[in-house]
Amino acid sequence: MTRLSFGVGRGRLVGMLPENPTIAMIGAGALGCYYGARLAQHGKQVHFLLRSDYAEVQKNGLTVRSVSGDFSLPPEAIHVFNDVRSMPKADLVIVTLKSTANDQFQPLIAPLLHDSTAILTLQNGLGNEERLAELFGAGRVMGGICFVCINRVGPGVIDHTAHGLIRLGEFGGGPSDRARWVADLFNTSAVQCEVLADLRYGRWEKLVWNIPFNGLSAAMDLTTDRLLDTPAGEELVRRVMSEVIATARVAGANLPDELIDYQIRRTQNMGSYRTSMHLDRTHGRALELEGIIGEPLRAAKRGGVPTPLMEAMYAQLRLLAQGNWVDSPRMA
Amino acid sequence: MTRLSFGVGRGRLVGMLPENPTIAMIGAGALGCYYGARLAQHGKQVHFLLRSDYAEVQKNGLTVRSVSGDFSLPPEAIHVFNDVRSMPKADLVIVTLKSTANDQFQPLIAPLLHDSTAILTLQNGLGNEERLAELFGAGRVMGGICFVCINRVGPGVIDHTAHGLIRLGEFGGGPSDRARWVADLFNTSAVQCEVLADLRYGRWEKLVWNIPFNGLSAAMDLTTDRLLDTPAGEELVRRVMSEVIATARVAGANLPDELIDYQIRRTQNMGSYRTSMHLDRTHGRALELEGIIGEPLRAAKRGGVPTPLMEAMYAQLRLLAQGNWVDSPRMA
Repeated sequence: MTRLSFGVGRGRLVGMLPENPTIAMIGAGALGCYYGARLAQHGKQVHFLLRSDYAEVQKNGLTVRSVSGDFSLPPEAIHVFNDVRSMPKADLVIVTLKSTANDQFQPLIAPLLHDSTAILTLQNGLGNEERLAELFGAGRVMGGICFVCINRVGPGVIDHTAHGLIRLGEFGGGPSDRARWVADLFNTSAVQCEVLADLRYGRWEKLVWNIPFNGLSAAMDLTTDRLLDTPAGEELVRRVMSEVIATARVAGANLPDELIDYQIRRTQNMGSYRTSMHLDRTHGRALELEGIIGEPLRAAKRGGVPTPLMEAMYAQLRLLAQGNWVDSPRMA
Repeated sequence: MTRLSFGVGRGRLVGMLPENPTIAMIGAGALGCYYGARLAQHGKQVHFLLRSDYAEVQKNGLTVRSVSGDFSLPPEAIHVFNDVRSMPKADLVIVTLKSTANDQFQPLIAPLLHDSTAILTLQNGLGNEERLAELFGAGRVMGGICFVCINRVGPGVIDHTAHGLIRLGEFGGGPSDRARWVADLFNTSAVQCEVLADLRYGRWEKLVWNIPFNGLSAAMDLTTDRLLDTPAGEELVRRVMSEVIATARVAGANLPDELIDYQIRRTQNMGSYRTSMHLDRTHGRALELEGIIGEPLRAAKRGGVPTPLMEAMYAQLRLLAQGNWVDSPRMA
C-alpha cells in the first residue's frame, strides 16, 4: 500500500495518507448517503453512521436514483452502524450532519480519531470548521462546499437530480497533499472534486447565494423563481448579495461584484426551486440559521459592515426557527 | 328640517349640516356595504356605488350576518348605482375604496360634490386624506379609523364577526360640529362612533398595530398567533412597533411606549387571525402597501428616524405586491 506523506507546513497534522483509507460518514442524511454511496460504489471502505434509517438500510442497503444512472448497494456491500462506539477508527471522517446538530461533534467524532485522522466537513455555512478545530485541533480540519441537488425520498433511498461537484480545502488555507488526496478519493468515485486554494473564499462565494435565497425563501415562503420574478424581488436579492459581498471582503474574501450577476443568472435557470431552508420551514424541521446567516452576521458586526436586510431576515428566521411549525401541504 | 351650521374655524368649509343628508358610499366592498347597510337600516339615505356586485345587489339587496343580529335590506329599500354619473350629489361622501384604487378619486368623487359636501375616508393607512385634500380642498376632508371584523362572503353578503367602532376626526384637526354630526349619523345607526380631537394621533396609533401585523403576516405568510408564539417573534414585533412609535413622534403624534404592551396583549387575545394584507397576499390581490407602510416609511425618512426593519419589510412586500401570485389553498 502506497502511503503519501502529509503536507506538514502551516501547522497541519503530520501523518500518512493511505491509498485505501477507512472513511467514516457521520450524519448519513441525503448528503452523507449520496456521497458515501458513490465512494462505496467505487470500492472505498465507507462506514456509515445512521440513526433513524439504520434498520432499513441494514436490511435493504442504499439506493440512489441518479441523473447519471441509478445504482443500489446491497446490505452486504456497505458497513452501517447505529452507535459510533462500535465503529472502527477512521483515516478520514466526513461530517454531513445538519449544522443544527453541531453540539454532537464531540460524542460522534472523538471516538473515531487516531493520531492523523483528517476531518472533512461538508456542512453548510460558516463556523463548522472553527468548531471542529476547537474540539479536535485545527490541523485535522478540512472543509468542502457541495454543489448538488439531492433529496432523501425514503429510508436509504436518495434522489440525485443534478450536479455533484465538491470544492474542498484546508481550514488552515492553501492547497495540500492531503486535500489532493481527498479530492482523488472523490474524483475516482464519479464525484467531481476540486481543491480550493482558499476555503474561506469558497465559503463566502457560496454564501452570496445561500444567504439571500435560503433566507428569503424560508422567511417569505417563496420559491427561488418567485423571488426573482419581479423587479422589486431581483433588487432585494441584489441588495442582500451586496451586503454579503461587503462582509466577505472585510472577512478576507475579496469577492468581485460580478458574482451578483452570475448568481442571479444561474438561479433564473434553476426554475421553481425550493431551497433547503425553505423545505425545513415547510416541514417544521430545524433551520440551519446560525451557519448560514447568524455567523456571517456576526462577521459583519465585527467588521463594522452595515447589513440591515440580513439583520431583518435573521430576526424573521429566528421566529420561524423557534416556532418549527409544520405547514399543511398545499393542494396542487 | 333642522340644519346645523358647520364649525367654520380652521379653514373648514362653511355650510349646513342637514339632519337627513344624502350619503354616497364610494367603494362598496365589505366595509362600505357593512357601514352603508347599517346607515340604511336606520333610515338614512344611502347611495351605494357598486362595481362587480351591482347586478346581484340590485336584484337581491344586501344581507348582513352579524354577531349583533342578522338583517337584510331588500332591493327596494336601497339605492344602488354602477355609474357615478347617474348618482345625485351628496352631502356626505364616504370613501371605502381600497387605497390601491386612490387614482380613481377624481372620477369617482368629483361628480358628487356640491359646495359644502363633506368627504369622510374610512380607508387604511396614511396619505388618503392628503390626496383627497389636494384634489377637493382640505376643508371638505375628514378621516375615520375602523375597528371592525367583516368579510364579504358573496355578492352583497357580508359577515360581521366582531366590533364596529369608528373613530373619526377632521383632517384639519380639532373637534368640530361636522365631526359630531357624522358621528351622530353612525351612533343612531347601531355603529359606535367617537370623535377624535387629533385624527393624526389616531392614525398613528392604528399603524402601531397595522405595520408589524399586516406587514410581517403578509411578508412571512403567518397568522398573528404565530407571529407572537415565540420569544423571537414577540421581540421582532416589539422592535417594529418601536420603529413606528419613534416615527409617529417625529410626525407629531406623541404615542406612549405602553401602547406596545397593550397591542401585544390585545393581539394575543385575537387567536389565529389573518390580517387583510395577509389575505390579499394569499388571494393574489393588490396589497395596501403604500398607505400602510410606504407613507409611514417616507415620514421616517423625512424625520431622520432609523427604521431598518420597516424598510426590509417594505422591500419584501414590494416583491409580493408586484408578483400578485395566488397561493394554492392549504389542505386542512
